[in-house]
Amino acid sequence: MPAQKKPKAGKAALQGLLDSERFLRPWRFRVVSVGDGTCTVVLPLRKALLRPGNIVNGPALMAAADVSIWLAIKARHGVGYDALTSDLNTAFLRPARNEQVYCTGRILRSGRRRFYGVAECHDKDGHLFSYHTVTYIRPA
Amino acid sequence: MPAQKKPKAGKAALQGLLDSERFLRPWRFRVVSVGDGTCTVVLPLRKALLRPGNIVNGPALMAAADVSIWLAIKARHGVGYDALTSDLNTAFLRPARNEQVYCTGRILRSGRRRFYGVAECHDKDGHLFSYHTVTYIRPA
Amino acid sequence: MPAQKKPKAGKAALQGLLDSERFLRPWRFRVVSVGDGTCTVVLPLRKALLRPGNIVNGPALMAAADVSIWLAIKARHGVGYDALTSDLNTAFLRPARNEQVYCTGRILRSGRRRFYGVAECHDKDGHLFSYHTVTYIRPA
Amino acid sequence: MPAQKKPKAGKAALQGLLDSERFLRPWRFRVVSVGDGTCTVVLPLRKALLRPGNIVNGPALMAAADVSIWLAIKARHGVGYDALTSDLNTAFLRPARNEQVYCTGRILRSGRRRFYGVAECHDKDGHLFSYHTVTYIRPA
Repeated sequence: MPAQKKPKAGKAALQGLLDSERFLRPWRFRVVSVGDGTCTVVLPLRKALLRPGNIVNGPALMAAADVSIWLAIKARHGVGYDALTSDLNTAFLRPARNEQVYCTGRILRSGRRRFYGVAECHDKDGHLFSYHTVTYIRPA
Repeated sequence: MPAQKKPKAGKAALQGLLDSERFLRPWRFRVVSVGDGTCTVVLPLRKALLRPGNIVNGPALMAAADVSIWLAIKARHGVGYDALTSDLNTAFLRPARNEQVYCTGRILRSGRRRFYGVAECHDKDGHLFSYHTVTYIRPA
Repeated sequence: MPAQKKPKAGKAALQGLLDSERFLRPWRFRVVSVGDGTCTVVLPLRKALLRPGNIVNGPALMAAADVSIWLAIKARHGVGYDALTSDLNTAFLRPARNEQVYCTGRILRSGRRRFYGVAECHDKDGHLFSYHTVTYIRPA
Repeated sequence: MPAQKKPKAGKAALQGLLDSERFLRPWRFRVVSVGDGTCTVVLPLRKALLRPGNIVNGPALMAAADVSIWLAIKARHGVGYDALTSDLNTAFLRPARNEQVYCTGRILRSGRRRFYGVAECHDKDGHLFSYHTVTYIRPA
């Protein structure tokens, strides 16, 4: 395992980015940890997220996956680096019942034009709620 | 082409369902049309949906896809019939720039335990913004 | 519906392409029909394709999906036009039991760098065996 | 990390299974290693696998992914345990140029009816060629 590279954007910078985006603010995501090409966010629990059965609704998990990879790219390349979601595949594995959801995104492949990563929504002990693969592309 | 079967739940019943679900209410989806195993919804445009560049954000399109298939299943089997999203794959094809998004879900395969369908987010003329495949499963 | 554009490569040209590729030859695909951005192939039935239960094996259906979109791109842009599979998502819906599999690929979105299409494996009456979404990209 | 459970089926049993399936034999997969819910196979290089540019063809990687998860399930539950591929999503990340492809499948979630896993095609040093998510279901 090589020494971990330092991320170009840290926790405060990424949290600032989240807070500045109007369309993201309603989710209230908090950045938990950042590494080179990886980022963990938490989705604070609130009633408006719950579907019947007190289960965190699916689009909320997909939003968390999208955000975690977006921040993982910013962590590696800097806050100003732009990329857009091109594909996002989701498998829902176990319902998140009335509990906080963490999501960890990790880039597996960085190309010049395309980023590919996986995101896992999980509880605080790492047990999976959902698994996602995400592709981002650089604007043409 | 066989004569179209009448859906078990119609437009008013499905709109009532949408309005009664607290976690769906913030999206403000409106049911546009319903058939046997198909449903079109519209996501009314509002500023809170827009990411920089005035583009409707991706999780909103995924939420529309999820809802359109959910309603397509209810249309076929009745409002009380329960099923849960198991997989949702999304390809973003063209940004929806400051415009209303329609989403049409259509069931391709109904099994005893599994439903498979496709959902298309599109503009009022049918041009695609995103394409989704969605699997729902019956609770065990 | 606008008048259908004539494809740039026709049935004979696409069949010639299939026959000239060593890695494709073992499948023995035959081109059934071609249009602008669409192509149907058939996978002739033979014992070596069957898994227990006399079901056509899954990788054979995925190969058919990949080929049908590849040919749909060539149909639109010409035999010499090059693109590579980037993503291929498959849902297996119903087993193909001891019968011939047809596969119809259709491009939904042509970009400068990216092609997105759907492919359906089906029987001669159009009933689905599997559904695929396929992304091709132009080499950098 | 808990002590690794011993797999119910070992390397020899899984290789025997591969060799006994007529539709798998042409690929010539070899089992490299087995654990509880995980299995690595190798796809021996031969000319018939190569597409122009001497790149191992995509359906071969998808077949490897499918097989590696199938064997990972057998490793956990025994050779006689039956399950069928329901979904297989693939991202091609880097071409395998004239080299042997290893594929490691790993189950992330075992349910009563559904198995979900990831498979990675990689070179001997672990560098990725492709990434796959795979769902198997128990026959009804």
